Amino acid sequence: MFSYLKSLRLFILNNDPSIKNNFEIYLMPGYRIIKYYFIGRWFYIHKFYFLSRFLCNLGRKKTGIEIHPGAKIGKNLFIDHGIGVVIGETSLIGDNVIIYHGVTLGGTGKEFGKRHPNIGNNVLIGAGAKILGNINIGDNVKVGAGAVILNDVPANSTVVGIPGNIKK
Amino acid sequence: MFSYLKSLRLFILNNDPSIKNNFEIYLMPGYRIIKYYFIGRWFYIHKFYFLSRFLCNLGRKKTGIEIHPGAKIGKNLFIDHGIGVVIGETSLIGDNVIIYHGVTLGGTGKEFGKRHPNIGNNVLIGAGAKILGNINIGDNVKVGAGAVILNDVPANSTVVGIPGNIKK
Amino acid sequence: MFSYLKSLRLFILNNDPSIKNNFEIYLMPGYRIIKYYFIGRWFYIHKFYFLSRFLCNLGRKKTGIEIHPGAKIGKNLFIDHGIGVVIGETSLIGDNVIIYHGVTLGGTGKEFGKRHPNIGNNVLIGAGAKILGNINIGDNVKVGAGAVILNDVPANSTVVGIPGNIKK
Repeated sequence: MFSYLKSLRLFILNNDPSIKNNFEIYLMPGYRIIKYYFIGRWFYIHKFYFLSRFLCNLGRKKTGIEIHPGAKIGKNLFIDHGIGVVIGETSLIGDNVIIYHGVTLGGTGKEFGKRHPNIGNNVLIGAGAKILGNINIGDNVKVGAGAVILNDVPANSTVVGIPGNIKK
Repeated sequence: MFSYLKSLRLFILNNDPSIKNNFEIYLMPGYRIIKYYFIGRWFYIHKFYFLSRFLCNLGRKKTGIEIHPGAKIGKNLFIDHGIGVVIGETSLIGDNVIIYHGVTLGGTGKEFGKRHPNIGNNVLIGAGAKILGNINIGDNVKVGAGAVILNDVPANSTVVGIPGNIKK
Repeated sequence: MFSYLKSLRLFILNNDPSIKNNFEIYLMPGYRIIKYYFIGRWFYIHKFYFLSRFLCNLGRKKTGIEIHPGAKIGKNLFIDHGIGVVIGETSLIGDNVIIYHGVTLGGTGKEFGKRHPNIGNNVLIGAGAKILGNINIGDNVKVGAGAVILNDVPANSTVVGIPGNIKK
């Protein structure tokens, strides 16, 4: 957890132009939620589901970000601003992913078991975008703000609109 | 209020696959806000508007969900995740409705008096959808994530996009 | 700051039909955040960036609204409901602007320095709309709920959809 946070701090510094003082990172909701997630995840893996949910909710109350402790996140997950972000139980997130506020990695309500998306490496997901269902978002994809994605997206593409259209 | 909450707990258990321990329900923001709503509504009906607004704001701070105490809700209103939900003063909600986070039942700013929507029974409203104005959403309607709905929607239909298009 | 708040209270009273008791204004998140903003801005201007960010985050935690203290706001900025609003560092907002919950004045991630929008006077921005990049939104513009705006919008127009289409 500590090495994860150290690496994340460097990643945030490289990606957020609004930071003027390195200590500001410790105040950022997207940084703080990671700690709740790791502790909650420990309880989840050891099947203390109530405690795990409790930590998830505590983190949500403190930061406005809800990461289900069942989700698996890669290195350097940077959630910027973060308020309203919801990441579902069976989501899988790659490395160096940037997620803005209001993003949902959710289910469609039609699937059971694995019902949340898989996000590749170096993906950027714009504010308010919704990615729903057990679908795959390839590496280096950019998802536009407000987009609603219900199907797989190939690597290196940009996807915008409702439902999401792939551009180039 | 207690019979309402008992019925709601059963409804949530039947509709949320992420729950592993029944006590988790007591932590869910969409469950907790209902208590604030009922108490706030009592004050609203008895014209203690300041206290009523105070409870609405307290509930909002604790859960991220804002239900105006003037809104009328039916049985088993299940607000999942819930952060960013805003339900306006003159909204009317039927039974067994599921609302995801980021949903707005709001006004268009052009109407006075009754200016918020009427939602039928068994309606499902996807994350981030906005339903605006004094319009009617029929029974069993599904509203897609991120949709913006400005006109009536007939029963048993699915509606997606900005502005909302009716599919089948 | 006090004269700003006094003027804002009158503006809110004239624009929010749900208020039944004038004291309710003091409970409104969109009113309370303005105080955090002014104090945070004082620290920002005097280059106490950590304290400034601390106040921004405290206000965000209390109200769900995040206004970067670097943003410049005009008279009577009324943020209604407010949860999930994010206003970026180099945003410029005119007078008598009404912003609903979930609105983002953000960057596209491609620009540096001045990278957030300029909003004219008497603009109304609907719930969940995203306005991204160093663009100009003219006076008296109405932005529809859920719209994503990436280009300049001329004065007196209405803009809706993803990406935003100008309707007269």
